[in-house]
Amino acid sequence: MKIPPVKGTRDFYPPEMARRNWIIDGWKSVSIRNGFEEYDGPIFEYLKMYQVKSGDEIVEQLFSLQDRGGRDLAIRPEITPTLARMVNQQINALPRPIKWFSVPRLCRAERPQKGRLREFFQWNIDIIGIDSPEADAEVIFTSLDYLRRVGLTAADVRAKISSRRLLASVLRGLGIDEGGLDAMYALLDKKAKLPADTFDALLAEQVPDKGQAARISDFMALDSIDEIQRVVALDDEIRAAIEQMQNVFATLELMGVADYCVFDPTIVRGLAYYTGVVFEIHDIVGELRAICGGGRYDNLLRDFGGPAIPATGMGMGDCVLEILLHQKGLLDSQVPPRRLEFFVACADGALAKAMYAVAARLRACGRSANFSYKLGGLSKQLKEASAQNAGRCIIIGQEYLDKQELIVKDMASGEQTQIHVDRFLSELGTT
Amino acid sequence: MKIPPVKGTRDFYPPEMARRNWIIDGWKSVSIRNGFEEYDGPIFEYLKMYQVKSGDEIVEQLFSLQDRGGRDLAIRPEITPTLARMVNQQINALPRPIKWFSVPRLCRAERPQKGRLREFFQWNIDIIGIDSPEADAEVIFTSLDYLRRVGLTAADVRAKISSRRLLASVLRGLGIDEGGLDAMYALLDKKAKLPADTFDALLAEQVPDKGQAARISDFMALDSIDEIQRVVALDDEIRAAIEQMQNVFATLELMGVADYCVFDPTIVRGLAYYTGVVFEIHDIVGELRAICGGGRYDNLLRDFGGPAIPATGMGMGDCVLEILLHQKGLLDSQVPPRRLEFFVACADGALAKAMYAVAARLRACGRSANFSYKLGGLSKQLKEASAQNAGRCIIIGQEYLDKQELIVKDMASGEQTQIHVDRFLSELGTT
Repeated sequence: MKIPPVKGTRDFYPPEMARRNWIIDGWKSVSIRNGFEEYDGPIFEYLKMYQVKSGDEIVEQLFSLQDRGGRDLAIRPEITPTLARMVNQQINALPRPIKWFSVPRLCRAERPQKGRLREFFQWNIDIIGIDSPEADAEVIFTSLDYLRRVGLTAADVRAKISSRRLLASVLRGLGIDEGGLDAMYALLDKKAKLPADTFDALLAEQVPDKGQAARISDFMALDSIDEIQRVVALDDEIRAAIEQMQNVFATLELMGVADYCVFDPTIVRGLAYYTGVVFEIHDIVGELRAICGGGRYDNLLRDFGGPAIPATGMGMGDCVLEILLHQKGLLDSQVPPRRLEFFVACADGALAKAMYAVAARLRACGRSANFSYKLGGLSKQLKEASAQNAGRCIIIGQEYLDKQELIVKDMASGEQTQIHVDRFLSELGTT
Repeated sequence: MKIPPVKGTRDFYPPEMARRNWIIDGWKSVSIRNGFEEYDGPIFEYLKMYQVKSGDEIVEQLFSLQDRGGRDLAIRPEITPTLARMVNQQINALPRPIKWFSVPRLCRAERPQKGRLREFFQWNIDIIGIDSPEADAEVIFTSLDYLRRVGLTAADVRAKISSRRLLASVLRGLGIDEGGLDAMYALLDKKAKLPADTFDALLAEQVPDKGQAARISDFMALDSIDEIQRVVALDDEIRAAIEQMQNVFATLELMGVADYCVFDPTIVRGLAYYTGVVFEIHDIVGELRAICGGGRYDNLLRDFGGPAIPATGMGMGDCVLEILLHQKGLLDSQVPPRRLEFFVACADGALAKAMYAVAARLRACGRSANFSYKLGGLSKQLKEASAQNAGRCIIIGQEYLDKQELIVKDMASGEQTQIHVDRFLSELGTT
């Protein structure tokens, strides 16, 4: 019986696994150097966790299931609700700010397409307990710190920054009532992804008043904070939202990544829970989906039954990132090849016992070591050693029987030395 | 709205995450030093993948779900079927032997209890393409290599080894027909876990002939291979099974772990697909479930539509292991505490800009650095630095404004030095 894999999932054979590990190890090390601590939650939660604030798109894409007691569960499509639940559970014990990161495996029942799979890994960083714009800037900086580390320059990627708070104030000023805001966010979030005609038609449907629709479109076309200050009727809320954004940009400048960053009012984000600065990082060419996105979500912890505590964060999936790195030649050139320290070979099958023993002793010393089960000729074993990218080959031959000496062959230089097994192992020490 | 976590799942706050990472990093590094390469598959597969050969217990515990097309899926309860599928898919391209490892997240709809959760991590190692007993020995050695590395001695844990092939031959010899073997395995696997009375009652139910039942019980009570050779009526198949086991023990002796290993005919394993040597590692006290278990499964690839290729492997979950390590005082003593290289503080809020800039530059140098958002007094910031276990504190004060010099305070010795920011950073280099 032959059963295929489920469409939209990936098999990670050792070469793909090495790429995935390289990406995830980079995320982890950049998180740690930026002062974040790692957490994780369960792969599934109660279904209603995702029906609270995640927005319609996420809810439609849930993989839901039931436990044996008939309770409705869902595989996590994002980790932020879990984060909110976990922080709320220990809110009085956790020192603030809470700077946490995670690399959850997530599942969404989407139609598989380029850069979008039904199962993926997503780097998440969040700062909870700080309402100052510097925290938003630190989230954006950390995302860029990773992208810069893997070799993506300001000529490759752009962080596009806007503000839900600004957008909300502007929309209110243009006569959109409070109850209509979520639907407007969902629509405006699609602006950059849709052909202009399609977007205009959808906007006309949602905002029948042509003048009002035109003013919304005009705002979405502004391309600097200065222009907003010139064009938009400023009230205190808009002024405050602009000042927040300006502080974010100023901090990003201090942190040395201003060249990656622009203001872009079309950045809205699909998730319903954002309340302040929002951002996405895109490839400059603009042919891929967002590499990452995030923003401030000051009400989410309260919405999950906790206190009102400000928060800001970001998520970066592995699919789009991997496509971009591959396009730029930054993937296979940086993923380290498999490397084996020692390959233990024996000149003849009668010496296999010594081969097992020496391999086991090398491993106990903390060294990676392999051997061949085939017990073919020495040249075949050396070929297998090369195929496994072994640094050195230990050859067990007559010298071992005579005086317990090994031949140690450096696979790069071909140089051979002969040494007593105990001396060799004691010189290796333990790692 | 307050939503609880699902029972039988775990929240990994940073301290729990550090423990999990330490365990998993150990598994990975021991796998690599034993010559295994990492792979992974999807978190869900088609439901029928687990209905083929996993056995009734696993099938009852599946978390099943449907995709949007109504196809039946299940969250993986084990990774071996995925491994069989993946190997079969690329059977002609993969160099053999295939020595692979994985650390999948698995889910089983069990009643949560000590050492058994509904979601857990399991270290898996497998050697595919080798039918010799040395491969079985290498799997057992690698498991023990990890346990020994984390400090568990032969006084703490015991590898109990038997053979499905031996058991099958003995049962056939005692008149159990081929169709009854799977049910016998399932029952005999429970022998060590049930009170003797309960087991005897179940055996009597399954084997009504009292003489036959007694002879099965007698076999299960034998405690050495010598005894089997003395007591059991030997045929060629039994002799061959015994010779295989003897070779496994001989190789384990060569590999230096004989003191951990014993023959134990009560080791049967619950999964249906084992065909040869099987083993479990238990705590010596015997109060916990098995730490790990595995064995030879020579038919599984063929059962999944591939060629007949021999295979042997093992799985070790994190739950029982963590309980045992904790009991032995080997967990918190070995998990490294959070460590921050630098905490950047400023003597006054006006210097915060420089603080952000210096922190960003340290991070870009590959160093972990944090700062306080509170901008309280210097002593409060130093306290935060201590709480985060910072190695050094960088203090930005008047010297920075005057001549761009930092004060670098070693948090252990209290020693302070003053140095130009550019010189300091260039001396740090990049890591």
